[in-house]
Amino acid sequence: MRKLILFFIFSLTQFLNAQLAIHQDQINILYKKALQEGYAYNWLDHLSNKIGGRLSGSLNAERAVKWGKEELEALKLDRIFLQKVMVPKWVRGTFEYASIISSPGMSINVPICALGGSISTPSSGLRAGVVEVKTFKELEQLGKDKVKGKFVFFNRPMPAEFINTFEAYSNTVNQRTQGAEKAAKLGAVGVIIRSMNLRLDDFPHTGSMNYGDLPNKKRIPAAAISTNGAQLLSSMLSLNKNLKFYLKLDCKNFPDVQSFNVVGEIIGNIHPNEIILVGGHLDSWDLGDGSHDNGAGIVQSMEVLRLFKEMNYKPKRTIRVVMYMNEENGLRGGLAYAKYAKQSIENHIFALESDAGGFSPRGFSFEANESQFKKIKSWKKYFQPFMLDRFELGGSGADIGPLQDNKVVLSGLLTDSQRYFDFHHASNDTFDAINKRELELGAAAMASLVYLVDQYGF
Amino acid sequence: MRKLILFFIFSLTQFLNAQLAIHQDQINILYKKALQEGYAYNWLDHLSNKIGGRLSGSLNAERAVKWGKEELEALKLDRIFLQKVMVPKWVRGTFEYASIISSPGMSINVPICALGGSISTPSSGLRAGVVEVKTFKELEQLGKDKVKGKFVFFNRPMPAEFINTFEAYSNTVNQRTQGAEKAAKLGAVGVIIRSMNLRLDDFPHTGSMNYGDLPNKKRIPAAAISTNGAQLLSSMLSLNKNLKFYLKLDCKNFPDVQSFNVVGEIIGNIHPNEIILVGGHLDSWDLGDGSHDNGAGIVQSMEVLRLFKEMNYKPKRTIRVVMYMNEENGLRGGLAYAKYAKQSIENHIFALESDAGGFSPRGFSFEANESQFKKIKSWKKYFQPFMLDRFELGGSGADIGPLQDNKVVLSGLLTDSQRYFDFHHASNDTFDAINKRELELGAAAMASLVYLVDQYGF
Repeated sequence: MRKLILFFIFSLTQFLNAQLAIHQDQINILYKKALQEGYAYNWLDHLSNKIGGRLSGSLNAERAVKWGKEELEALKLDRIFLQKVMVPKWVRGTFEYASIISSPGMSINVPICALGGSISTPSSGLRAGVVEVKTFKELEQLGKDKVKGKFVFFNRPMPAEFINTFEAYSNTVNQRTQGAEKAAKLGAVGVIIRSMNLRLDDFPHTGSMNYGDLPNKKRIPAAAISTNGAQLLSSMLSLNKNLKFYLKLDCKNFPDVQSFNVVGEIIGNIHPNEIILVGGHLDSWDLGDGSHDNGAGIVQSMEVLRLFKEMNYKPKRTIRVVMYMNEENGLRGGLAYAKYAKQSIENHIFALESDAGGFSPRGFSFEANESQFKKIKSWKKYFQPFMLDRFELGGSGADIGPLQDNKVVLSGLLTDSQRYFDFHHASNDTFDAINKRELELGAAAMASLVYLVDQYGF
Repeated sequence: MRKLILFFIFSLTQFLNAQLAIHQDQINILYKKALQEGYAYNWLDHLSNKIGGRLSGSLNAERAVKWGKEELEALKLDRIFLQKVMVPKWVRGTFEYASIISSPGMSINVPICALGGSISTPSSGLRAGVVEVKTFKELEQLGKDKVKGKFVFFNRPMPAEFINTFEAYSNTVNQRTQGAEKAAKLGAVGVIIRSMNLRLDDFPHTGSMNYGDLPNKKRIPAAAISTNGAQLLSSMLSLNKNLKFYLKLDCKNFPDVQSFNVVGEIIGNIHPNEIILVGGHLDSWDLGDGSHDNGAGIVQSMEVLRLFKEMNYKPKRTIRVVMYMNEENGLRGGLAYAKYAKQSIENHIFALESDAGGFSPRGFSFEANESQFKKIKSWKKYFQPFMLDRFELGGSGADIGPLQDNKVVLSGLLTDSQRYFDFHHASNDTFDAINKRELELGAAAMASLVYLVDQYGF
């Protein structure tokens, strides 16, 4: 009997070691294929350079949908479909311009761009004095008397001391999203927002803003100014509180238009009803070509499924790629997808989003309960050869967020974030800012995690 | 008695927790100062853009020595001195050029550069057939018959599948360092080496080579070709084995000249004889301005001492910065420094080198014994808020290597290595490839580690 038990333990250990070795082998192959003969970089080249910026509701966004569907078809996935989504349509227009007028006849141009969702200025532009604030509290303290008839200049820099630059962003982005509403309520004629950028440079960074409950006639134009422009305006204001600012925006909101999420999947051969989702967002801002935000996430997600097909890996569970529409200014794709999933009573066990740029992967964040996270942490060993050190609890991704139901595990690819806000929502978020290997390492990491979830489930 | 023991344990725990909190506070301050008001980036701007490439023996290298000394003087360190070093002097010359001649009158230019140390071609250039190999073994198998009178084209790519790109470099660099010697022994007239670059682009990457024991008259010219150029040459060879290659190099070796290591220190106030060294190399290759290799390491090392001065931190031990001369093509500075240290019977307890580019820091490697490494690992907790995850045993740095005596602990800053070989030794290793925050995070990490070594010693 004792011999039998020993034999059993011995066999079990052998079995477990063999499992471990098999998984490590599979992950090694995923990495090799992604780095040696990956598709992600060439796909992104097309999406960025042949299609370009693809703001929701634009012709380019529709081109991107068509391209995404065709590329999934070329992969011969088991099922591909488009999911209808009504999206906002905001158009920047043909001309935006600003200058600081220090005295009559003395003016200097500064780089600005309209924030997404802003109304335009009158066609002759807006000319007014400026009050500078760093916080909403400062704005309240100024009060209606000092704000009325002026531009409010929100000039709170992203704090340099946050190591995770996304934290620095969270710390400052409310001036962009809510600044116009708060300033309008005090009678301001427009807002100028310091760009969400840790670096001092000449790129204005756009991004979404909203007017909250402000009625249409109370709304005011909102523009971002480059960080160098913000420094200049602030120092000129310190010398001359009476300077004027001139702003001309030509942007416009249109009624919602129809667009699509693009969905494709490999159907699982043991648990086809358990869905493992991987995705990013297909829309981008219009200034650059959206290579980091979020072309990278799109092509990495496509690459996960391509690698499985290429390896002839037959997943136990259904592996689905979702290219979400309208993350940037509405999240309509994420909301529509979650609604669809709920209505179809689909069982999503895991969703992974890449939306932190195509930079070197550092690990993953997870929205998971204790037992789920314990299981996930047991997989960390497989990632050590690939220098993925960080497995942590935390937010996942905007598009997959609406799937949260306290059962599904949500995850976000964590990248090295230092350079992200140099490019975020600006005209320099272009293909040349992408490093091929960093992009591919992210795709390989995602494929490896999806593989393990497929093997073990939750 | 029992109460007394409990009280003692309680007090000890309180003391240890207080220590921990003090250290974390100090490290937080180091990071904040480096990120909010650091000097590293501006220093590097000067070194890269005002001085530029600084190959050993060049006028620029001497300018860099002068600049380094003056900047240390401005920091009001306790002691600053230059250390004489005789260095090789190799000059690229005014003109280097190559083309592939597919048939008489049909030629195409390819981007090449002389390898450091190479002899020139005859002034009319060299024109000969080409044999392509990937390894020394292949070269041996070809033998004298097939090699004689030809160029040997070493075309082994850096393997994409290594996650640490320095491993990929180690795997291939022998074709650059020894290729000419091996080929010359079989009668080749010159060597063309595929650039050490993981990317396909048009930059040739220089680097050191040597002729081993080859007598002067047997030496042959050695050039690097860009990766795109290598791909082109290889595919043209596959179509036409009889094509010719034309190479013209104008480089020259001169007798050794005198240069200097630049040394500065803050003298310890408790253990002044225990030296903690931090450094990088001041020389660079001549094609770019050496911002990553190794201007970054120089300014980060300077920043460590500046931060301590700025914080008015009085170290227990002597903190010394060394700007080494001639890492790239001789290591004379490192050897001279180690010799000096030995002759002066100085007690180096720790030496830290930054020579892996100014990229996001990931951790440190250590050459240490078991008990030293155990102590080091106990400090890992202080670095977790700063996303430094990797503390590992392994090689440290070329310049500090000669200090190895099995007592001193040697360490190297580990950076994210994915982009490093895009720039290494090429004309695009310039200031614009540096990200300010990544550079500063490296400096802060180094200062924090030096601080802990100063507090605890070995």
